[in-house]
Formats: sequence, structure tokens, C-alpha cells
Amino acid sequence: MPEPTVRRRGPYAKSAERRQQIVDEAYRAFATRGYHGSSLREIAAAAGIGQSTLQHHFGSKEELLLAVLSRRDELGGEPCEGASRRSEGTPFAEHILAQAERNERIPGLIALYSVLSAEAVTDDHPGRDYFLQRYAALRAEYTAEFTALHDAGRLRSGIEPALAAASVVALWEGIQLQWLYEPERIHAVGALRSYLELIVLPPVQ
Amino acid sequence: MPEPTVRRRGPYAKSAERRQQIVDEAYRAFATRGYHGSSLREIAAAAGIGQSTLQHHFGSKEELLLAVLSRRDELGGEPCEGASRRSEGTPFAEHILAQAERNERIPGLIALYSVLSAEAVTDDHPGRDYFLQRYAALRAEYTAEFTALHDAGRLRSGIEPALAAASVVALWEGIQLQWLYEPERIHAVGALRSYLELIVLPPVQ
Repeated sequence: MPEPTVRRRGPYAKSAERRQQIVDEAYRAFATRGYHGSSLREIAAAAGIGQSTLQHHFGSKEELLLAVLSRRDELGGEPCEGASRRSEGTPFAEHILAQAERNERIPGLIALYSVLSAEAVTDDHPGRDYFLQRYAALRAEYTAEFTALHDAGRLRSGIEPALAAASVVALWEGIQLQWLYEPERIHAVGALRSYLELIVLPPVQ
Repeated sequence: MPEPTVRRRGPYAKSAERRQQIVDEAYRAFATRGYHGSSLREIAAAAGIGQSTLQHHFGSKEELLLAVLSRRDELGGEPCEGASRRSEGTPFAEHILAQAERNERIPGLIALYSVLSAEAVTDDHPGRDYFLQRYAALRAEYTAEFTALHDAGRLRSGIEPALAAASVVALWEGIQLQWLYEPERIHAVGALRSYLELIVLPPVQ
């Protein structure tokens, strides 16, 4: 059913606000119960609207998932935004550690990403392509960074840039999952720092 | 409804076989759709029985989840069985690499573990305590192993055993998730080997 218009505003602003509200509730639902475990009915109820109103904005659950994932990308965060978004001049390793520190303030986002990335492995999951591409893009970015460090003589001998790239992403995601269980005990930033200090050599003075 | 008895066997064997079959189907369902995304009705249908028969064996979905998790423990696998089960005399790092290699033959088990460990972060998830305890037990075992290596002068200087323990578990789980997406491209064993070679020094001859 359509919602009563309580404030005098243009239909576009109203619709955008409603969409945002639905995406926020879907985000919360997917982060705690996963994609398969969440229903449009429950998401609509949490947003205080009927399911038909929700489906007026998002025709299917798949469409809503894709909206949540691009919302996630806007918010940034985990596992890392990579080289393309970092400030010019910030060294790669420091950038990763700063991002990991920021992630400690957004556990809900980390949980969303953990649940969906695991669930979306299945062939017919609508988020599969998103995660396939995201992992590939992150590894490509990090590989470029480690290759540049290698060329500058700053990658430890024997470390292969592509393997180090996949390993940083893996360590980051894995340690964040442990941190979600025991935030007081697990130091995600410490684990990443220790690994990066092993493989990235300090600049020659 | 009770199932017709087609073979002449004692009721205990029959019941044990039926339970096993239900657990196998639940295992498949949880691994692909997660715990919240799977229903008792679907699991019963996949096992070719009615939902009331299923509930005769497993009173609740929670009970079934706990049976799947202990089945997982029997099968072994991911992330590692740790020191307690390894053959006497096998060095810790080699044991981890051998286990990671075996895990490449059981992607379904790895997927189950990935999905449930992420989903169970939520406070009210019935698998939460299982994963909390499992992570703590794995870290404790690995910490003991790295401490022994440290005492033998075989841990790289500056490496903290507890942090290395959490990091190995994290790297292992994270790289296995990427491997599930791209098994041809991601070398989980290679990533673990590279990390272990960085922190564990060869024995003095």
C-alpha cells in the first residue's frame, strides 16, 4: 500500500529517502541473517512499510542486494579501498593500517561483508559476480603496489607480489572475522602491521 | 509420519542411518544457503522424508545445526586439526601445509565453515559459542606451537607467538575463501607456505 505523505516535499526527494531507508534496513538484515535468511516481508516490516511499497522501489530481493552492495561501496571500509582512493603520497602499508583502524568503528559493515562474501560463493547467488570482481580488483591493485615496492628494492627478497596481494586481503578478512567475535582480544591492526613489516622493507635513508 | 521399514534391521541401526542422512542434507543446505536461509521443510524434502519425521530425530533446527557441526569435526579439515591430532614428529608448519592441501579436496566443507563462521557472529546465533570456542582453542594450540619454536630459537625475532597464531588461522580462512571463488587461480597452500617460511626459521643442522 502507498504511504501517506506527511511532509510537503517533491516526489523525488520522498522516493529517494524511502529507498535509502529500505536499503538501510536490508543492510541490517543481510548483515545479521545473510541474504538467504532475510525476507522482503521482514525488511519491509522493519522499515515500517508494506511489502508492496518495498517492491515498488525494489522489484526483487536481488535488486535490493545489489543496492546494499553499492551502498557498502559508498561507505567504504573493508577490506580496503586500495590505492585508487588513497591520498597521494601515503605509503601503501600505512594506508592499509589506517583503513584497518577505521574499520574498527564499523563492525556492522564488516559483518555484512563477511556473511555475504561467504554465502555468495555458491554458483547461483546474485552477489557472486560482485565478490568475484571485487576480489580480483583488490588483488590487482595490491599486486601493483607490491610490484612498485619490489622495483624500489623495498620488497623482501623471495616475496612474490601477486601472492602477497592475495595474502594481505586474506589475512585482513580473516583477522576481522576473529575480531568480530572477540573485539577486546583480537588486534586486527597489529596482525596486519606485523605481516607488512615482514615483507615491506623500510625506505633507504 | 514414520517411514516404512524396507530392510530387516534393528531399529537402532535404522534410526542411526536416518539421522546420518538428515545431517548430510542439512550440511549441504547450510553450506550453500547458510543456517538462517535453510528450512527444516526443505531439508526434510531433500532427504525424502516428511518434516515430522525429521523432527522426530532432531527436535529443532538448532539441534540439527549442532549435529552438523560435530559431523564437521569428525570429518576434520578446515582450518586445521592442530597439534593434538597430528602424527608425532611431524613439524608444525609441515602439518599445516599438508592439512591445507587435503582441504582442497573438500570444498563443500570449507564453504560450510565459511558461511557459518561469518553468520554465527551475531549474538543470538545458535552456532556462536561453537565458533567462539573453536577459534580460542585453535589460537591456544598454535600459540603453544609457536612458543615451542621460539624456545628452540626457531621463531623469527620480533614475532609474537599469540599474534602469529591468530594470523595463521586468519590467513588460512581468508585465502580459502578466495580459493572457493577461483580455485584455478588462488594457491592457498602457497600463501600459507610463504607466510610460515617468513616466521619459522629452519632447524640448525
